[in-house]
Amino acid sequence: MDTNRRDFIKRAALITGAAGTGVFTGSCTASTPKNNAPLNLSFQEGIAPGANLNEKLDFMEKLGITGFEPGGRGLAGRVNEIRQALNGRNIKLSAICAGFSGWLIAEEEEHRKECMESSKEILAAAGELGSVGMILVPGFNGQQPSLAMPQAREILLEELKELGDFAVAHNTTLILEPLNRREAWFLRLLADAAAICRDTDNAGITCLGDFWHMTWEETSDYGAFMSAGKYLKHVHIASRKRRKMPGEDGDADNYTDGFRALKELNYPYYVSFECGTEGNREETVPAAVALLRTQWEQA
Amino acid sequence: MDTNRRDFIKRAALITGAAGTGVFTGSCTASTPKNNAPLNLSFQEGIAPGANLNEKLDFMEKLGITGFEPGGRGLAGRVNEIRQALNGRNIKLSAICAGFSGWLIAEEEEHRKECMESSKEILAAAGELGSVGMILVPGFNGQQPSLAMPQAREILLEELKELGDFAVAHNTTLILEPLNRREAWFLRLLADAAAICRDTDNAGITCLGDFWHMTWEETSDYGAFMSAGKYLKHVHIASRKRRKMPGEDGDADNYTDGFRALKELNYPYYVSFECGTEGNREETVPAAVALLRTQWEQA
Repeated sequence: MDTNRRDFIKRAALITGAAGTGVFTGSCTASTPKNNAPLNLSFQEGIAPGANLNEKLDFMEKLGITGFEPGGRGLAGRVNEIRQALNGRNIKLSAICAGFSGWLIAEEEEHRKECMESSKEILAAAGELGSVGMILVPGFNGQQPSLAMPQAREILLEELKELGDFAVAHNTTLILEPLNRREAWFLRLLADAAAICRDTDNAGITCLGDFWHMTWEETSDYGAFMSAGKYLKHVHIASRKRRKMPGEDGDADNYTDGFRALKELNYPYYVSFECGTEGNREETVPAAVALLRTQWEQA
Repeated sequence: MDTNRRDFIKRAALITGAAGTGVFTGSCTASTPKNNAPLNLSFQEGIAPGANLNEKLDFMEKLGITGFEPGGRGLAGRVNEIRQALNGRNIKLSAICAGFSGWLIAEEEEHRKECMESSKEILAAAGELGSVGMILVPGFNGQQPSLAMPQAREILLEELKELGDFAVAHNTTLILEPLNRREAWFLRLLADAAAICRDTDNAGITCLGDFWHMTWEETSDYGAFMSAGKYLKHVHIASRKRRKMPGEDGDADNYTDGFRALKELNYPYYVSFECGTEGNREETVPAAVALLRTQWEQA
């Protein structure tokens, strides 16, 4: 058993321990008491100030950030760099953000194949790094020509079964991300992403909820996360008007309804920053972290 | 003020009273206690045994069924008949089931116009009868050619604003029904129907959840109804494998997860039977009613 495999198992055990009862059962009752699930925060690579990865990770550690989400492009060539940078730190890989080329619902087979192959390369690196998964969007609005329903959904399921098997073999998952309609009409709702996960019936296919996109598409953060349920493996967060640091859009940046669902689900994965800032990162990032911790307590 | 208008106001007051706090706020907490919201059951016209409408209503009254859902086709010519049949009974109109022609996301304007006009005729009758609303499907798979996204959604919103204003003027609503993918890819999820309601920003546009269709499309009855939230004005129910009376498909016919959401929402409208039966209605219908009442208590 190699180190990565051992890490994966240890990680899975930790996650199971953190999850406790009630997770994945879909059977929470109306009288479920608030639980003590921790808020596990993660940053994409551009969030923390710092001249290099180590400086960024130092900043994150001081804030108690325990997850790191690098981009997927060129990840295979960065495995050693990232592994060394994380060595000895209390920071794990949360998810890998995209980085693939081509798209899975393309009309042309070559574009679909390009997506399958580039995704597998990233999934293999994601597995090596112990990441929960790699984030994938089945098709952006601008990626044309794309297949229409029901063909798009049928071919997607077949592709996902193959990618899911590949992900499981590499101790990781593929994480489907619903976007808002300005970016992707094909997949906009968490309930739909979860239904795709269920329909693939493959442990390697999971989904993500991004508060930014959810602002436009979901009527209820709570209902959306409860629908995602056991398939939910990652969460993105940003301010809700301009996609800046949480808090930069004032009262609009309320996440308690969604956090309440994550707590009820005993969600054991990460809430990861994917956003810009209008201010000085040295100030806006810690302020955002403090805001989220307060809202998590209130949820 | 005519009688219908008075009835509508009285009805609205009753509904508001039944709803109490917590309804429409989206702010239920994890520790919300189970409440005493009643289960209001409704039958479509074909459910109860009986040689005519009065015999069916007699059967319903004996079972404590308080809602009646007639079809929309020809409704304008049945207003007096239905009003007289309900006179003196503890049964109200729940919803009007479809009955329109044409479809709202048609490529051809004449089909869209046909749908608008036939829907308005039914809405006017629905209002006269004090119905919560009239059920509409924006487009079935078989209705072609239909517009693609985003045009379909844009034109739908414009049409719904007009129909919503018409519905409000007639003291009723238009109720959007998501179907399963075998019938309609365009609208399958409650969260999506609720998002359309929100996007129209019109009090006359509401939505429905049908346990039969939800079986195939939703991963969580609870999450789906919580997403529908304040826009939810009607619920359909059937057995979950063959669309027969609840209970005829055995253990598959579990509605408690969805009922729990309806109770948390203080849902004040109806759960209406839309299904066939393999058995003798004199027996299968009361058995189904008893099953639902038991599951409501357990939820």
